[in-house]
Amino acid sequence: MAKEGEGEAPLRRLRLLSLHLDPSSSSSYGGSLALVPCGGGGGGAAARRRRPSAVSVAELTEYMRGRHRGIQMRVFEFFASRPELATPVEVATAEHREICMRQLSALVREAGIRPLSLMDDDPSAYFAVLEAAGGVDISLGVKLGVQYSLWGGTVINLGTEKHREKYFDGIDNLDYPGCFAMTELHHGSNVQGLQTTATFDPLTDEFIIDTPNDGAIKWWIGNAAVHGKFATVFAKLILPLQEEAGGSADMGVHAFIVPIRDLKTHAVLPGIEIHDCGHKIGLNGVDNGALRFRSVRIPRDNLLNRFGDLSKDGKYTSPLPTVNKRFAATLGELVGGRVGIAYTSVSVLKVAVTIATRYSLLRHQFGPPKEPEVSILDYQSHQHKLMPMLASTYAFHFTTLYLVDKYSEMKKSHDDDVVADVHALSAGLKAYVTSYTAKSLSVCREACGGHGYAAVNRFGILRNDHDIFQTFEGDNTVLLQQVAADLLKQYKEKFKGGTLTVTWNYLRESMASYLSQPNPVTTRWEGTDHLRDPNFQLDAFRYRTSRLLQSVAVRIRKHTKTLGGFGAWNRCLNHLLTLAESHIESVILAKFIDAVQRCPDENTRGVLKLLCDLYALDRIWKDIGTYRNVDYVAPNKAKAIHKLTEYLSFQVRGFARELVDAFDLPDLVTRAPIGMQSEAYSQYTQYIGF
Amino acid sequence: MAKEGEGEAPLRRLRLLSLHLDPSSSSSYGGSLALVPCGGGGGGAAARRRRPSAVSVAELTEYMRGRHRGIQMRVFEFFASRPELATPVEVATAEHREICMRQLSALVREAGIRPLSLMDDDPSAYFAVLEAAGGVDISLGVKLGVQYSLWGGTVINLGTEKHREKYFDGIDNLDYPGCFAMTELHHGSNVQGLQTTATFDPLTDEFIIDTPNDGAIKWWIGNAAVHGKFATVFAKLILPLQEEAGGSADMGVHAFIVPIRDLKTHAVLPGIEIHDCGHKIGLNGVDNGALRFRSVRIPRDNLLNRFGDLSKDGKYTSPLPTVNKRFAATLGELVGGRVGIAYTSVSVLKVAVTIATRYSLLRHQFGPPKEPEVSILDYQSHQHKLMPMLASTYAFHFTTLYLVDKYSEMKKSHDDDVVADVHALSAGLKAYVTSYTAKSLSVCREACGGHGYAAVNRFGILRNDHDIFQTFEGDNTVLLQQVAADLLKQYKEKFKGGTLTVTWNYLRESMASYLSQPNPVTTRWEGTDHLRDPNFQLDAFRYRTSRLLQSVAVRIRKHTKTLGGFGAWNRCLNHLLTLAESHIESVILAKFIDAVQRCPDENTRGVLKLLCDLYALDRIWKDIGTYRNVDYVAPNKAKAIHKLTEYLSFQVRGFARELVDAFDLPDLVTRAPIGMQSEAYSQYTQYIGF
Repeated sequence: MAKEGEGEAPLRRLRLLSLHLDPSSSSSYGGSLALVPCGGGGGGAAARRRRPSAVSVAELTEYMRGRHRGIQMRVFEFFASRPELATPVEVATAEHREICMRQLSALVREAGIRPLSLMDDDPSAYFAVLEAAGGVDISLGVKLGVQYSLWGGTVINLGTEKHREKYFDGIDNLDYPGCFAMTELHHGSNVQGLQTTATFDPLTDEFIIDTPNDGAIKWWIGNAAVHGKFATVFAKLILPLQEEAGGSADMGVHAFIVPIRDLKTHAVLPGIEIHDCGHKIGLNGVDNGALRFRSVRIPRDNLLNRFGDLSKDGKYTSPLPTVNKRFAATLGELVGGRVGIAYTSVSVLKVAVTIATRYSLLRHQFGPPKEPEVSILDYQSHQHKLMPMLASTYAFHFTTLYLVDKYSEMKKSHDDDVVADVHALSAGLKAYVTSYTAKSLSVCREACGGHGYAAVNRFGILRNDHDIFQTFEGDNTVLLQQVAADLLKQYKEKFKGGTLTVTWNYLRESMASYLSQPNPVTTRWEGTDHLRDPNFQLDAFRYRTSRLLQSVAVRIRKHTKTLGGFGAWNRCLNHLLTLAESHIESVILAKFIDAVQRCPDENTRGVLKLLCDLYALDRIWKDIGTYRNVDYVAPNKAKAIHKLTEYLSFQVRGFARELVDAFDLPDLVTRAPIGMQSEAYSQYTQYIGF
Repeated sequence: MAKEGEGEAPLRRLRLLSLHLDPSSSSSYGGSLALVPCGGGGGGAAARRRRPSAVSVAELTEYMRGRHRGIQMRVFEFFASRPELATPVEVATAEHREICMRQLSALVREAGIRPLSLMDDDPSAYFAVLEAAGGVDISLGVKLGVQYSLWGGTVINLGTEKHREKYFDGIDNLDYPGCFAMTELHHGSNVQGLQTTATFDPLTDEFIIDTPNDGAIKWWIGNAAVHGKFATVFAKLILPLQEEAGGSADMGVHAFIVPIRDLKTHAVLPGIEIHDCGHKIGLNGVDNGALRFRSVRIPRDNLLNRFGDLSKDGKYTSPLPTVNKRFAATLGELVGGRVGIAYTSVSVLKVAVTIATRYSLLRHQFGPPKEPEVSILDYQSHQHKLMPMLASTYAFHFTTLYLVDKYSEMKKSHDDDVVADVHALSAGLKAYVTSYTAKSLSVCREACGGHGYAAVNRFGILRNDHDIFQTFEGDNTVLLQQVAADLLKQYKEKFKGGTLTVTWNYLRESMASYLSQPNPVTTRWEGTDHLRDPNFQLDAFRYRTSRLLQSVAVRIRKHTKTLGGFGAWNRCLNHLLTLAESHIESVILAKFIDAVQRCPDENTRGVLKLLCDLYALDRIWKDIGTYRNVDYVAPNKAKAIHKLTEYLSFQVRGFARELVDAFDLPDLVTRAPIGMQSEAYSQYTQYIGF
């Protein structure tokens, strides 16, 4: 039946297209659209908004690819050649953990990938491997991240040369599987509230690690339940005071290397109690455990001492003056984890959008009387669900590539401005992208109806695995507050005449333009040229951000007088979160516009421009209340934006197949029978046994 | 550590409360709020908006309870006494299916619940059992629904006395487990497009059931993979035409009882091929299968012949004149399934909101400098996530109870108006509530951070099981279109002078008021009395619905000229979906307001009023762009609505514990260690093994 339909599909598409493009019928999209030329000639604005006539998947893929496709293909080809390493669709937790460890071990020892060396030499190559591993199984990506970004990352970034010498190779070749033991039962986001203690014993030159109460049990520690030999344990460094007997000083949270299992026998070491955190919503390939320490002694050398050191005679020294600065420096070094999560989250989104788009093109349901059924992606409601999502995926793709580059630059230059930029941007993008992906996975499942509910078609596994991306390495609500706090800091500095870091630079101009009222003429402009002008779009995003920033600064100042700093912040919390999201969206749009403008091929650029416009206008429409409330757009313009958004979704739908093909995901990564490039239904019936 | 905090919690709450209520600090909520009296005296408007001082969980529970709490307690007590029947947190598909069948069998044969008899005698008692079974395991609820609502429902509602006599008892006592075989690989929503055929053979007085191609394989059929003995198969009735040799007539989709497995040996019967649909995202306690028929012969009597019958000599008769009317009548009888889904979805939402609220009260993180940490539910952002959701849960509770009553009334009276009402309302509520619950389950997980990710804490299982509620028994996007179509029909009838069905009645008044422009004075009113006046709230909801209805009617009329009916509908599809949602929200608000006003206890009524106001204003704020675009609210009023929403969320937070306790969920249903009423952390550590 699909076959009968397929032969007629191009004709039907053409007919439907012509209906949409008929000038007499397009009037509902606003008169201005009738003026859009359908191709050919003209420079400047007209060329910019010319409707692209075709797109080459090869050109688009070439432009999209990161620098490290080679190493990703190495990973994919290795796993394609080793089907026995594939994770089954249904798998019990215990078995999944073993498969995941075998996958990681094979990647390192058989495929010869050395993630820690990559991270050290070229972080962007490391992130490419992390993404590819996540494509094989998100659990594998996370297991790799625990071993290298977290356990390896703490040793390299918080330790000194002696630690590197002792542990680097063992971590890199997996002889030393390890954990990152920060979170406790009672403390996740509030890391400064951790209660585990590391008390220095000058008599033996050791630290004694203790879990003072149930709330301080280390919880959710990846690699701890089964495989870990070591853990980087975050604990308050307690120094006995020499002057008065019995007294002690709390030097704040530090990181310590604690062996947890015997290197040979793998027996849990004395004083350590480990329990299995058990079955999770997803990521069951990763063995999370809970650890309690009872007077566990470690050598003084196991303090990761880059930002704070202790001499044999109990003298504490640090290159940084205060507990808070040391804490910030310690956590600051962990920012790579967030970069990796944002990057991997985008690749999860690509998989979901690809499956949902391909199936929606394949699936035909209902149609005009006595005519063949139409593809469900021809329904306006379905375009509305998936096309702005496809546009966002492209937007996030370019922005996370930019973040990875910035991160690499930071690791080389250590320039203060770049450091500040990467910290806020990685926090904001991690939060924004993972929240978006999480929501989209549900939308994609629903868009694929019943067949989307088969586990083999991936949405459930992707959603369950990805879900915690919103929480780990910084709860999204907390991370957005860090972005807002950074914006407020920059805002204050601006008024002190200081400079802004690069990403924030736009605030300088737009804050000035904000102080004037919106121009009553331009607020009514509704022409397509104007709405698709990147200057209008960027101005709209930045105006909103600037306005939110200025108004929240005033509100916080006012409330601080009566509620104190904490109370005032809380009173404005929703406002602050909106500000942070608005800022991140401004950054994403700017990066997307850059990517469009840099694209050398004209047709490719045309399609990217279509996506970029859809991203921008869809976001403006979603927040149209805000724009209307401040009269930044008049009612007629709001209506025009809405209509153009629907029309752009329709146009993007015309290139939907090519746009997902250009993500260049191998079948090994897509996997879903309904998401295959061809013969999807028959792959599905065969899978079921027909 | 939690214990230390707990002692101080009430004092801290009081201090925080007093900060919020300090008139000098409350000015950010708009001057009007400072006028709200904090208790005592006064009638009329002042009494209506008086802040309730306390709430009795017992009073609230008493008022909330449906009529059938007794039978629900019987179900809960039965399963509480039989812990070996509980579904483990991690369970393989094959085992889960067996557990689920054992649960159903025990419920029927040991606890003595007879669902089909209940459905027949008092549908609302049947729905109460369905809800309770879903509380034990959603798979059990769905398995029960497949057996009774679907398989049993078709026999009772589409068959005649002869079918009832032959099958009723066997279905009720589970001797005859059965399936509902409607969906095919290529056709789900478009039931009229089904391709399975039932060809009458006058020589043997039989029907021959055939699957003509792969696309017609019956797919996702619950109970088919393992347990089913029978299936109600939906197929096109094909009549050989007597006058001309070889010709045949397609009489449209009819339902047939087809035995699929031997009653004694359980062997699959000849000509039938069954494959397992395999692992699903959730509901793995239900065994979905795919069926192919190859010339399977069934007696003529197996046609479920209430709406169309065939005599031995091949004469087709029907009480209904056309194929479309017969089709509508057939599907119309299945509306009970949607009622059950909406009802069960609300109970899933209650479980999630309860766990998330209790944990958020328990969890303390960050706080003012040198002060104890605060409950995360004291954060404005967290109140924003959970309190409008709590209000919506109450709103849905009252509305679905109303729907169940209406359904029971319909089954008794068969009054045409009630039938039309129940059809559109069940479609709309099923779609609206299940979409809302699906989104909320993700929000609740995220609100509980890492501990929300432990499978034992339920959000993953609830989300995975509930997910398909958005798709089965009518895809939500399709159901909302039915609501929109019904509204348009009523709209046309209004202009022909006809009457409107009960639920739609409000359109009469508000369409009239819509024709005039919004009053420029009231659009600026921002006083709390006004915003909390149910008349204002209802008017706002209904104004929006009326306006959307009127404008989409005009647009469809216009586009039909150029695009035809199908094209015009598609061109307005997003608009139509918004209209349907808006209408459903209007109905929900009206039912909630009724429930508040009927509540006899003053304090209980006060708290319900708080929730109802939050529900109404939060919805208005979420769609503020629409209201602003038509100048129904002025900017100052929009701002006041936003501020009042935040303030009401804060007030509801003060009763959050009591409000979730009033759902009266037994621990058997809540189950999550972090969602227990007390000692949650220690239940959690014990579960892990400490």
